[in-house]
Amino acid sequence: MNTAQPLPVQVDHLLQIALAEDIGTGDVTTTACIPHDAQAEARLLAKELLVLAGLPFFQRVFEMVDPSVEVIALFPDGTLIPPGTVVAEVRGLARSLLIAERTALNVLQRLSGTATLTRRWVEAIDGTRARVCDTRKTTPGMRYMQKYAVAVAGGANHRFGLDSGVLIKDNHIAACGGVTEAVARCRRAAPHLLKIEVEVVDLEMLDEAIEAGADVILLDNMATDTMIAAVQRVRSSGRPILVEASGGLTLERAREVAETGVDFISVGGLTHSAPSADLSLEL
Amino acid sequence: MNTAQPLPVQVDHLLQIALAEDIGTGDVTTTACIPHDAQAEARLLAKELLVLAGLPFFQRVFEMVDPSVEVIALFPDGTLIPPGTVVAEVRGLARSLLIAERTALNVLQRLSGTATLTRRWVEAIDGTRARVCDTRKTTPGMRYMQKYAVAVAGGANHRFGLDSGVLIKDNHIAACGGVTEAVARCRRAAPHLLKIEVEVVDLEMLDEAIEAGADVILLDNMATDTMIAAVQRVRSSGRPILVEASGGLTLERAREVAETGVDFISVGGLTHSAPSADLSLEL
Amino acid sequence: MNTAQPLPVQVDHLLQIALAEDIGTGDVTTTACIPHDAQAEARLLAKELLVLAGLPFFQRVFEMVDPSVEVIALFPDGTLIPPGTVVAEVRGLARSLLIAERTALNVLQRLSGTATLTRRWVEAIDGTRARVCDTRKTTPGMRYMQKYAVAVAGGANHRFGLDSGVLIKDNHIAACGGVTEAVARCRRAAPHLLKIEVEVVDLEMLDEAIEAGADVILLDNMATDTMIAAVQRVRSSGRPILVEASGGLTLERAREVAETGVDFISVGGLTHSAPSADLSLEL
Amino acid sequence: MNTAQPLPVQVDHLLQIALAEDIGTGDVTTTACIPHDAQAEARLLAKELLVLAGLPFFQRVFEMVDPSVEVIALFPDGTLIPPGTVVAEVRGLARSLLIAERTALNVLQRLSGTATLTRRWVEAIDGTRARVCDTRKTTPGMRYMQKYAVAVAGGANHRFGLDSGVLIKDNHIAACGGVTEAVARCRRAAPHLLKIEVEVVDLEMLDEAIEAGADVILLDNMATDTMIAAVQRVRSSGRPILVEASGGLTLERAREVAETGVDFISVGGLTHSAPSADLSLEL
Amino acid sequence: MNTAQPLPVQVDHLLQIALAEDIGTGDVTTTACIPHDAQAEARLLAKELLVLAGLPFFQRVFEMVDPSVEVIALFPDGTLIPPGTVVAEVRGLARSLLIAERTALNVLQRLSGTATLTRRWVEAIDGTRARVCDTRKTTPGMRYMQKYAVAVAGGANHRFGLDSGVLIKDNHIAACGGVTEAVARCRRAAPHLLKIEVEVVDLEMLDEAIEAGADVILLDNMATDTMIAAVQRVRSSGRPILVEASGGLTLERAREVAETGVDFISVGGLTHSAPSADLSLEL
Amino acid sequence: MNTAQPLPVQVDHLLQIALAEDIGTGDVTTTACIPHDAQAEARLLAKELLVLAGLPFFQRVFEMVDPSVEVIALFPDGTLIPPGTVVAEVRGLARSLLIAERTALNVLQRLSGTATLTRRWVEAIDGTRARVCDTRKTTPGMRYMQKYAVAVAGGANHRFGLDSGVLIKDNHIAACGGVTEAVARCRRAAPHLLKIEVEVVDLEMLDEAIEAGADVILLDNMATDTMIAAVQRVRSSGRPILVEASGGLTLERAREVAETGVDFISVGGLTHSAPSADLSLEL
Repeated sequence: MNTAQPLPVQVDHLLQIALAEDIGTGDVTTTACIPHDAQAEARLLAKELLVLAGLPFFQRVFEMVDPSVEVIALFPDGTLIPPGTVVAEVRGLARSLLIAERTALNVLQRLSGTATLTRRWVEAIDGTRARVCDTRKTTPGMRYMQKYAVAVAGGANHRFGLDSGVLIKDNHIAACGGVTEAVARCRRAAPHLLKIEVEVVDLEMLDEAIEAGADVILLDNMATDTMIAAVQRVRSSGRPILVEASGGLTLERAREVAETGVDFISVGGLTHSAPSADLSLEL
Repeated sequence: MNTAQPLPVQVDHLLQIALAEDIGTGDVTTTACIPHDAQAEARLLAKELLVLAGLPFFQRVFEMVDPSVEVIALFPDGTLIPPGTVVAEVRGLARSLLIAERTALNVLQRLSGTATLTRRWVEAIDGTRARVCDTRKTTPGMRYMQKYAVAVAGGANHRFGLDSGVLIKDNHIAACGGVTEAVARCRRAAPHLLKIEVEVVDLEMLDEAIEAGADVILLDNMATDTMIAAVQRVRSSGRPILVEASGGLTLERAREVAETGVDFISVGGLTHSAPSADLSLEL
Repeated sequence: MNTAQPLPVQVDHLLQIALAEDIGTGDVTTTACIPHDAQAEARLLAKELLVLAGLPFFQRVFEMVDPSVEVIALFPDGTLIPPGTVVAEVRGLARSLLIAERTALNVLQRLSGTATLTRRWVEAIDGTRARVCDTRKTTPGMRYMQKYAVAVAGGANHRFGLDSGVLIKDNHIAACGGVTEAVARCRRAAPHLLKIEVEVVDLEMLDEAIEAGADVILLDNMATDTMIAAVQRVRSSGRPILVEASGGLTLERAREVAETGVDFISVGGLTHSAPSADLSLEL
Repeated sequence: MNTAQPLPVQVDHLLQIALAEDIGTGDVTTTACIPHDAQAEARLLAKELLVLAGLPFFQRVFEMVDPSVEVIALFPDGTLIPPGTVVAEVRGLARSLLIAERTALNVLQRLSGTATLTRRWVEAIDGTRARVCDTRKTTPGMRYMQKYAVAVAGGANHRFGLDSGVLIKDNHIAACGGVTEAVARCRRAAPHLLKIEVEVVDLEMLDEAIEAGADVILLDNMATDTMIAAVQRVRSSGRPILVEASGGLTLERAREVAETGVDFISVGGLTHSAPSADLSLEL
Repeated sequence: MNTAQPLPVQVDHLLQIALAEDIGTGDVTTTACIPHDAQAEARLLAKELLVLAGLPFFQRVFEMVDPSVEVIALFPDGTLIPPGTVVAEVRGLARSLLIAERTALNVLQRLSGTATLTRRWVEAIDGTRARVCDTRKTTPGMRYMQKYAVAVAGGANHRFGLDSGVLIKDNHIAACGGVTEAVARCRRAAPHLLKIEVEVVDLEMLDEAIEAGADVILLDNMATDTMIAAVQRVRSSGRPILVEASGGLTLERAREVAETGVDFISVGGLTHSAPSADLSLEL
Repeated sequence: MNTAQPLPVQVDHLLQIALAEDIGTGDVTTTACIPHDAQAEARLLAKELLVLAGLPFFQRVFEMVDPSVEVIALFPDGTLIPPGTVVAEVRGLARSLLIAERTALNVLQRLSGTATLTRRWVEAIDGTRARVCDTRKTTPGMRYMQKYAVAVAGGANHRFGLDSGVLIKDNHIAACGGVTEAVARCRRAAPHLLKIEVEVVDLEMLDEAIEAGADVILLDNMATDTMIAAVQRVRSSGRPILVEASGGLTLERAREVAETGVDFISVGGLTHSAPSADLSLEL
């Protein structure tokens, strides 16, 4: 997900809802105070160190309010931006700028927050085999945009949703009576371009998953030692199985986990708890 | 905003988008593994100390996926919940529970995160005249739900959007040639049930705003001393003007600001940077 | 509400419904008779004395059918137009003009009807302190446009809807056990930029409402004498309370009511019973 | 159009827009004052003599706000109701009743207004061959409901829109070079279940239209004498052609026109200028 | 239905659904492989003998994905195209072309399939009085486009749907107690620009339908001899009644049926069973 | 895709469009002829040998028109049904049955057509390793339903759309400068639960694809001999690569292709050219 152009319709739907909830029946203050033909220029300013993410959506918000507004990005998404930097310029009718401003910033600040946190993970595990990736613990309505922010910051994207990958968890296994049967059922029912991932909690389940033919194995909440053993067993199986670590991982522990040899570390916090990055629009 | 029933259509729209992005064309794993008629029960578990918020939306997500799912809340929204507490039970088709689970939790975790942070502010300024309130720095698409979370946690809600209150800022004043003219134009153009708030940065502007007939005055980024002086001038004007403080306020400084005598402290972080609260659904 | 640009999405939704119900699966007559590339010009003609209102919506209807149609307004909305005047010109594909014509006129005729009636009220109370304003008795789907028509004709807009102002009526008071409690509850629960209006039917309730801290008082269905007494009591309270008169008011009685000293006269008939103004499009 | 059940989706769309514009983000007054579980009963009262129309839509508005509200109609649509009559009862949560009330009434009052005016036309031409019918000069978004109101009051419905009937007017004739060619083109291009109507302004055009094979002829703005002559020529042609009169007709002139022998009198005012009927909901 | 411009909104809705189901959250292959600024040209190639239909919709699909894509039609819809012919050129961003390609082709192939089959019917009955026409047995969501395809291939369009024509079948007749009453009820209730068609299965019913005043008579599943007799009775009635034949008709029997003197032959297979025409897009 | 419950929203959107295009503003014939409270029963009759598919959607159409209609399936989807069999019963208001009938049948007939053709392929290759699967050559708007029909008939589903699998074709390879680079780019950019498929046209490309690490290889338009060689090379690579055959395959050649040892045979004709199955609803 390297570019957001053309934007999928679900992004437009979310931005429409966001604009509607902020504008409602109109900006009474701006309509009363600002002449309808006044022009303005604004500078988008980073107020702290951040990784920029979300300019296509920021731009789209202005465009939805008024197609004649011009947004000029001075840096591409994914750039590490020092505080005090002007990252974009916005020109157009003053009314349009004021009406779209808050919604555009609300989007950009959240996505840059996610990108900034993702970059810290990317750097923490730099040089290892592992890549940090996102989860389905995204902000309702913002999954596409958040996954975009993770990607431009150098992270990897996990399956988009329940339809684009098989992930067998405890409840699925219980219902099938075992890992082997669960994998077999999914192999038969799922489209053949989807890989099958199995979540395991110990080495016994791991062996079962390898045997059952899992394409990817998720090590859930394991101690580092167990992870090391798990990776070893997978590699010695001779099968091209990917290994993913997950569960309550912190940035502090990131490198230790990455050095166990896993392929992916999935981190819910990238999308559910990253604080907003501080950017403002100065007219 | 004490109850979410009946939910406004924009909430349903957001939840539909959220479900659509997670489910897409279907949950391939669950469809393959879980019999279509298997029943299940799940317990919603708080995994840390939190203020609960969002049960009506949590419930609505299940209902949108499958109207026959039953969600029983064991505590009302706004309750402080110790870790390890079961806060709700969910019963119905196992498939429906698994398909709706992630989206329902994504909503509830974010709102409980906002409520938990709001409650800390409420407690920090307890006993003062001031109330903590939200801003327009909300998560795109979730404004109604986030304002609900602030309210159930004991916070106050600022204007919902640009249409339900007049807030005159620097750009409006500049375009009008002064505070007095800006207030006059808004008084003429705005519906007469909307109050007029003026954002001021120093005591001179404050005096102008009082003179111009502002109903509410926003003290932006002021030092505590200046706030004290500002509140004094407002009160001595004899007019029923409300005073609001804003701008880079931290929980640490909350009480000091509240004790200046302001009526409201508005805090963007309640909605833009509260980390998700940790809740899980155990089948 | 002085300008309709950019139009809120709800206006577009209404106009889409209006076009869909008129066009359905296509204009069979025009498709059969008019060559697809024939150009045409049309003049929009006032056929009676009227106050023009709704050109941005008239224009938008043509634009929705065919973005290449050009609509040139010769007078701004709010202008008093003598019969026989050409108020706008429309140029483009003949098919597009014929297909959009009826819907565009249906909008413009209703809004000009409302504006024309509003202007008569404005003139009837000219020179008094009072302003005429609209109500929530609007035509389903057309609230934004009708309020726009009232505003361009010189009237004032009451709260847009149930969310943008507090109006305490008999049922609310009954449920709360009295005016004082009702005002207190609303003061606590409503966003602090919303004023609180109380509807009163006699002078006793009026005194209670003043005492309770109402920001606006609505005199419902009062005799002129009572209104005079009510205004006097409000003014002598020393509080900046606005007074609004409502209930079965006629244009004949308008001046008498305005001269009681009220601030607003709200008139449902502006939007629920104004006859359409007569305009036609001559190709 | 004798029944409104099941309602077409476009009706629901319009009612959703109408509810959204009135409720917005919620009824702040009701939420603050009325307990969420309070029950209420209301009586729908006719405050003037009227023909009732629109109960299915009135009921649908309540149902959309809260499916548990019960609306009991005491008279069927189309009934002539004396002032002071209770025409329906509404029971349910007090909040739901207050929130839906205005929108439900806004619909019912307009439709009953149209039905009441239609009935006066029906009575004015009673005993003649003619039926009064509506036009496309309807209120944007309300065409289905307004045509329903005309029908229940005893009027006839003209074509629903541009797609469900051929009506050849001056511009079509000009583009085709004559009535004969216009009729021929439509005969070839239009679905064979649509009749072809031709608008004529004098007897010469009338003869051409008869000759060209028109199924229906619209006499536009003709003097009564000319109409009589026109009807005579049509009848003596021996063809089963329907005759419709239109153009600036008043209720005063209705009977005179009906007695010329035309089959239909089409009246724009039924839908564009009928004042609202006075009904209120008493809790 | 000779032109598809401007397209009715329902067409856009269908195309949006079609694009959404194919693109989902994005084309992962193209995004990974094709530079975002790479340009491309493609040729739309007919791979078998076909009648072209659907270019406006084909073009619209590309426009919805990316308004800067240029589609140049080299032949008008309705043209008989030999295999190997390039019928259009498409130029624009390579990504946009690849993303829109499948949906655009899916539309065009189906419509050209219908047009090709329609043309064979048109030719089979060439020189007779009869025209081939479509039915309501269309592909869900594609009725407008399929009827367009029938029309450009030289076929006629039957009523668009249940609202634009009266067609009395056995169940209607049974409920009314006979053909005569059914026609009478429809004559009273239906808009007067809609013709009344009656489906008859034998000559007795035919006589009843003629007597009742049917405008069109549908001969259902009749033997050729019976059709000849039926047409004779209709013509000798002296009334301008149209006759339509329907029910299990094959291309082989087409001419025989047409020569009975019927006006229309309606064929469900044009829209429910025409195989797709083979066209491909070569980049 | 074994069950259609709960239906994804896109199915409801398509069915709404389908109902809207058939019903429009109402069924004039049925409204005129059938009493609003008349009940009816209907039997759904197979008129030829077919594999049943689509009952959940058939049922949903009736439910959308009128939730009180009862549809009782007598056989599950996927059953081979002899001609003359009653496969379901429908009970409810006669009006509702008549209004929903055509749309419900239009859906069911097409899906049963696809299922019937799929079953013939399934039988043709029975006993071999190969499974028949669908493609993206689906009917616009009906992808979910058509893939469901393929699945219930025993076929396999290929990737749902462009987002749920990587399929590298000639244009992707050209843009990347070779198969190896294309696979590498996709491996980096695509979510790690998606497999990578490469389309190859000869054995040289095949070797490159194996070497590059393709998960699935698509043999495009190959002669049987070449396919045999291709399968051999893949199997002897020792990698768990799936092999798919595609391109102009006919039912006649099905077994020969299946016996080459491929894993999947993908057939566009299942969804783009299957004739409708003949079912009718007898009231």
